[in-house]
Amino acid sequence: MVVHPSLTLTFEFSASSVILGAAALGIFWALLQFLIVARIPVQSGTTNEETGLVSGGSNATTARLVEIYEAIYEGAESFLRAEYSVCAFFVAVFAVVIFFLVSWGTGWDSARGFFTATSFVLGALTSMASGYLGMKVAVFSNVRTTVSAQKPGWTGCFNTAFRAGAVMGFALCGLGILMLYCTMLAFRVHYPAAQDWVYLTECLTGYGLGGSSIAMFGRVGGGIYTKAADVGADLVGKVVHGIPEDDPRNPATIADNVGDNVGDVAGMGSDLFGSFAEATCAALVIGNTIGVSGGWDAMVFPVIVSSVGIIVCIVCSFIATHIVPVRNEAGVETALKVQLISTTILMIPAVFLAADAFLPASFELAATVGDGTITLKPDEAALCVCMGAVGGLTIGLITEYYTSHSYKPVRELAHSCKTGAATNMIYGIALGYKSVIIPVIVLAGAVYGSFSLCDMYGVSLAAIGMLSNLATGLTIDVYGPVCDNAGGIAEMAELESYVRDKTDALDAAGNTTAAIGKGFAIGSAALVSLALFGAFVTRIRTSSAASGAQLFANGVNMLEPLTFAFLIVGGMIPFAFAAMTMKSVGLAAMEMVMEVQRQFDEKPHLLDANPTERPDYDACIAISTKASLREMVPPGAMVMLTPLFTGMFFGVTAVCGLLVGSLVASVQLAVSMSNSGGAWDNAKKYIEKASPDSELKGKGSDIHKAAVVGDTVGDPFKDTSGPALNIVMKLMAVLSLVFADTFYAFNQGRGIFNL
Amino acid sequence: MVVHPSLTLTFEFSASSVILGAAALGIFWALLQFLIVARIPVQSGTTNEETGLVSGGSNATTARLVEIYEAIYEGAESFLRAEYSVCAFFVAVFAVVIFFLVSWGTGWDSARGFFTATSFVLGALTSMASGYLGMKVAVFSNVRTTVSAQKPGWTGCFNTAFRAGAVMGFALCGLGILMLYCTMLAFRVHYPAAQDWVYLTECLTGYGLGGSSIAMFGRVGGGIYTKAADVGADLVGKVVHGIPEDDPRNPATIADNVGDNVGDVAGMGSDLFGSFAEATCAALVIGNTIGVSGGWDAMVFPVIVSSVGIIVCIVCSFIATHIVPVRNEAGVETALKVQLISTTILMIPAVFLAADAFLPASFELAATVGDGTITLKPDEAALCVCMGAVGGLTIGLITEYYTSHSYKPVRELAHSCKTGAATNMIYGIALGYKSVIIPVIVLAGAVYGSFSLCDMYGVSLAAIGMLSNLATGLTIDVYGPVCDNAGGIAEMAELESYVRDKTDALDAAGNTTAAIGKGFAIGSAALVSLALFGAFVTRIRTSSAASGAQLFANGVNMLEPLTFAFLIVGGMIPFAFAAMTMKSVGLAAMEMVMEVQRQFDEKPHLLDANPTERPDYDACIAISTKASLREMVPPGAMVMLTPLFTGMFFGVTAVCGLLVGSLVASVQLAVSMSNSGGAWDNAKKYIEKASPDSELKGKGSDIHKAAVVGDTVGDPFKDTSGPALNIVMKLMAVLSLVFADTFYAFNQGRGIFNL
Repeated sequence: MVVHPSLTLTFEFSASSVILGAAALGIFWALLQFLIVARIPVQSGTTNEETGLVSGGSNATTARLVEIYEAIYEGAESFLRAEYSVCAFFVAVFAVVIFFLVSWGTGWDSARGFFTATSFVLGALTSMASGYLGMKVAVFSNVRTTVSAQKPGWTGCFNTAFRAGAVMGFALCGLGILMLYCTMLAFRVHYPAAQDWVYLTECLTGYGLGGSSIAMFGRVGGGIYTKAADVGADLVGKVVHGIPEDDPRNPATIADNVGDNVGDVAGMGSDLFGSFAEATCAALVIGNTIGVSGGWDAMVFPVIVSSVGIIVCIVCSFIATHIVPVRNEAGVETALKVQLISTTILMIPAVFLAADAFLPASFELAATVGDGTITLKPDEAALCVCMGAVGGLTIGLITEYYTSHSYKPVRELAHSCKTGAATNMIYGIALGYKSVIIPVIVLAGAVYGSFSLCDMYGVSLAAIGMLSNLATGLTIDVYGPVCDNAGGIAEMAELESYVRDKTDALDAAGNTTAAIGKGFAIGSAALVSLALFGAFVTRIRTSSAASGAQLFANGVNMLEPLTFAFLIVGGMIPFAFAAMTMKSVGLAAMEMVMEVQRQFDEKPHLLDANPTERPDYDACIAISTKASLREMVPPGAMVMLTPLFTGMFFGVTAVCGLLVGSLVASVQLAVSMSNSGGAWDNAKKYIEKASPDSELKGKGSDIHKAAVVGDTVGDPFKDTSGPALNIVMKLMAVLSLVFADTFYAFNQGRGIFNL
Repeated sequence: MVVHPSLTLTFEFSASSVILGAAALGIFWALLQFLIVARIPVQSGTTNEETGLVSGGSNATTARLVEIYEAIYEGAESFLRAEYSVCAFFVAVFAVVIFFLVSWGTGWDSARGFFTATSFVLGALTSMASGYLGMKVAVFSNVRTTVSAQKPGWTGCFNTAFRAGAVMGFALCGLGILMLYCTMLAFRVHYPAAQDWVYLTECLTGYGLGGSSIAMFGRVGGGIYTKAADVGADLVGKVVHGIPEDDPRNPATIADNVGDNVGDVAGMGSDLFGSFAEATCAALVIGNTIGVSGGWDAMVFPVIVSSVGIIVCIVCSFIATHIVPVRNEAGVETALKVQLISTTILMIPAVFLAADAFLPASFELAATVGDGTITLKPDEAALCVCMGAVGGLTIGLITEYYTSHSYKPVRELAHSCKTGAATNMIYGIALGYKSVIIPVIVLAGAVYGSFSLCDMYGVSLAAIGMLSNLATGLTIDVYGPVCDNAGGIAEMAELESYVRDKTDALDAAGNTTAAIGKGFAIGSAALVSLALFGAFVTRIRTSSAASGAQLFANGVNMLEPLTFAFLIVGGMIPFAFAAMTMKSVGLAAMEMVMEVQRQFDEKPHLLDANPTERPDYDACIAISTKASLREMVPPGAMVMLTPLFTGMFFGVTAVCGLLVGSLVASVQLAVSMSNSGGAWDNAKKYIEKASPDSELKGKGSDIHKAAVVGDTVGDPFKDTSGPALNIVMKLMAVLSLVFADTFYAFNQGRGIFNL
């Protein structure tokens, strides 16, 4: 479709309407799913679907269900409240810092300082709202999934957990787009002319920074919380033998379940919202020159892609809930995988249609490197988006191959446990390192392809493409912890064992698909941070004085002493970060073990079959809360202060080295840590499924004990350090982007030391 | 000292005489040390120092000593023979490849092809000779150290082990310099004019490649051999309880001891020879333009530095053997540390003197970036060397802090074993990651400082500076395995326990100082590969047609799609390499366990207190040999073929990305793996030293068992993958350097695909 100049106004209207319409549709859809889930009453026993009557449950069990539900809810609520108080303080202080530094950096253009600070606050608030919402929905749905699992058949309980995920997925995407686009429209009032949209997009980067910095605290804080409780609870098995997972007599068990909600749901929600916000900001900054020749609609094309993604995800979600509903255990994994694959496939024609509809037949873009402009066609832009989407799916499927026990790597890992924990560790770490190879090659291909087609703009589009089915990805990501928690609740409420078996099966499928989701997340993080780095270079070149253009006129030279020195420093950051977060988990877990030990010592009847004493769950919750709030600050501060100080003291060439070095090392470390952790987890599950007579001896054997060591080590790998490394690379890049002008203001980008 | 033009000839004579004299002195010194060690007779019992009479030993024990000595010798000899047959085949084939590719790349200048291939063969042969020599000396001296340890006092046994190390250290340095310099002099006959020295130095890079590729096979092959046996022997403790380390009833014990000699001595010897050769080649290629304005002496300054290093190391070695001889246990560690510190300090004035004597008061160098030449002063060059030397020492001391149980990190790690193997793993990996921070900052500082002072030439001088006290470093590196083996022999020959205690104490001190040596090795590897990368860029710019200069006229732009894509691919290589080597160790160790188990099953009396059957040591040796020869090929091939194919298919900008990415990730991974492994080892030793009543419970407790898991995982970390990663970054860089013209010949450096 070719756009005629006379039609611009019409299409401008329609771009906004598509975006706002899709955002509203997403939010509406989330609400609808929520209402469906809410219809399930919290009570034990089997509900007859036709009559609605409950049979077989006791009032005591129902009371116990409600009690556990409330304990988890209160724990999660109070943690998030504590965490968000810290975050609110940080946001307030940092907003002032942003206002002054950006205003100063732009020659006291206080409007830009104010707008940047405002969008920072908005991004942070949206991120917090996303996390909080996700936690609420998850806690609300966990118990309802347990209840549904009491009913015969798989459709009901699967749909409950799936819908819970969908609430989070669609609400977050809808909210994110709505807030972002409304902010843009508001800023446009101040910057009506297309030539000034460069400032508009630059101020908007604050939105990405806000989302990302809350994501950092959420991921790290939540990650430490959940893994301190999880590792602590696991280690209790070492200290006090014979307590199964989620046993109500274990004082750490409620904290463990709270952790799933605040870490795996709230933390992850903030994380992916951050990715979305940053990817969009990067694309808008790099592509702001498109607005001059192509108009508003062309410039907001990245937001259109995300909006189209919401609609595609809604359409595809019917496959799981209506067209091919889940009827048996084997169908669960298939249903989830079909979601990811179908959304990716459907995105391809949708993106090409959208590009033809909203992009001019050819449009111009200032090149990141060199002085020229490049002329782009809609199909080229659409192709970049598709490369990202398909690349993400490929990375996801490779991740699955390395972490699911349906394939050779994890089975081999399980067999390595036969010679003890040490070989399990060696094989597991080697597996993680090896799993990096193909994702990195795919990523490199996507970078090269999109970069060659559309310069840095192409990379940012690929990042958006990889996140285009975010709503579905999030749905599946939330689905996992909901099923996990449902199982925990079933165990604690001492429901019949078939309920637990069912939720375990739901959870196992979720684990595998969550691995796919992690692959998407890491891949997109790498593309996003590369795009942000490109935006940083673009911003230095375009928005500063002529000498700024001079600075990177020939690109960014690796053979500058400062750039090279900071390349290796940048490569060190993810290692330092992983060290800090892992040790925090270890430390907090040890505190947890001591506390549990103390309780067992002081209350000798706690472990009786029918205990007369109740464990002090709150003490464990307090340990996790305190530890995570205390430990999330140093790694967060390191990640945020390093680029800030580097830029101010050593200048922008140093920042380039820092960002690229950190990107290169983070990708590898994030992929390998996530996959090692996932593989250990599933190797343990594979051994647990083996019969005592088989080669792997099954649960309780020495082989199983060796596997448990791997699983415990893998916990902080896959749920604390690994995923947080995504944020490391993005946050450092978006922070540099926000303060680009400020860095430039110190001796024209040569830093305070004027090196 | 200012050099008058009239004096050039005199000084030219004196440069060669200093270099050849120092090389000869080094070899002579090694011979002298060897003769002193050889005077010790292989017999059990205490030798009276004055009368020379032996008392207290039995003929049976002496016979046992000789028997073990011969078994280790034969095992090591036969392995090296097998390994070197593979290497010889590789060298022959690859020499032909080099001849053709380089000749073709230089427009059928077959002289350059021939010279490059020749220096490749010479480098490879010297590397093999170094490894073989080291193994011979070590095996020869192990048993003599055991014998000396029977005598009262510490001076004798320390000096024996120390002298054994010195034989290797000085022989390798002397031989390396001698061969390199003679090759240079020979090539100079063909290229007498200073303008042609650019070809001379380029052909010489083959020497570095030869040294480095043998180092790769030696390190990986030897590393897999030694750790398969070591891990296998350790795991036997899991399978068959109650067998202590080095118990003669354990069939894997001889293989374990052979492994120390072929891995820790021969492999490491080849490795460090490779570093030396590559550092020198890099400096000569980058600095070949110095020859035009400053003459031969100025150009060979890097070789002079290494020569001066030999003399400094000889002088300082008197401190350990004569001035402050070791009199007690505590003195051992001090003596070794004093060696490293004193040689570094003494190097500083020596280098300044040498620079003033052999470099013109000012000399010119073509800049790596940009078209200009830069003017340098002798003091600036000397300062770069010193930055490297002092930086290396700093990195070494930091390494010691993180891996010695005298300091907090390892003690904390030991305490983490209280909650089991999982927390030990988490803490140990976190410790390794954390230990990267300061070394990387020091390295970044050295890169920035030397780069700013003398462009890339400065970086190569810093690398040479870090290796300037190589003879001492090697002495200490060999000292460690010699003491370790001496202890093994004492155990196997069932000598009295005080002998073993003494060798253990000697070994413990060696472990700590070996960590310092590893720090030097990694730091210098990073600088060397950066320098080689600089040499690669320089070579593309200077030796190719004008369009070559065009290619990197503005440096190497990170924002090229190809460069960036290969940056992440390069970052993946060390992870893939670590995965391959670790898994090889795991695989071979599992085979070893099966074999030991088989022997115990088939020979039930093997474990009796006075066994009537003897274990089949050879079967275990065969497993280690076969596994290491089989497993060393894929990682070696990956490291060598990746840059080759990248350069040929994707061109030189892709190679730049690949090399830098690999450097950035390798440094971090090498440091963290080495340090995690070292820390686990020493945490285990710290727990073993604790009394059963203390908090750590001591040997045999659950805490100790958790520590053993860490130690076992740490084995491939610190002795296979970690140190081999040094070679990964160097080898990829030197290979690219050798084939720079060849890469350029494909579509002027744009590769076969002409991207």
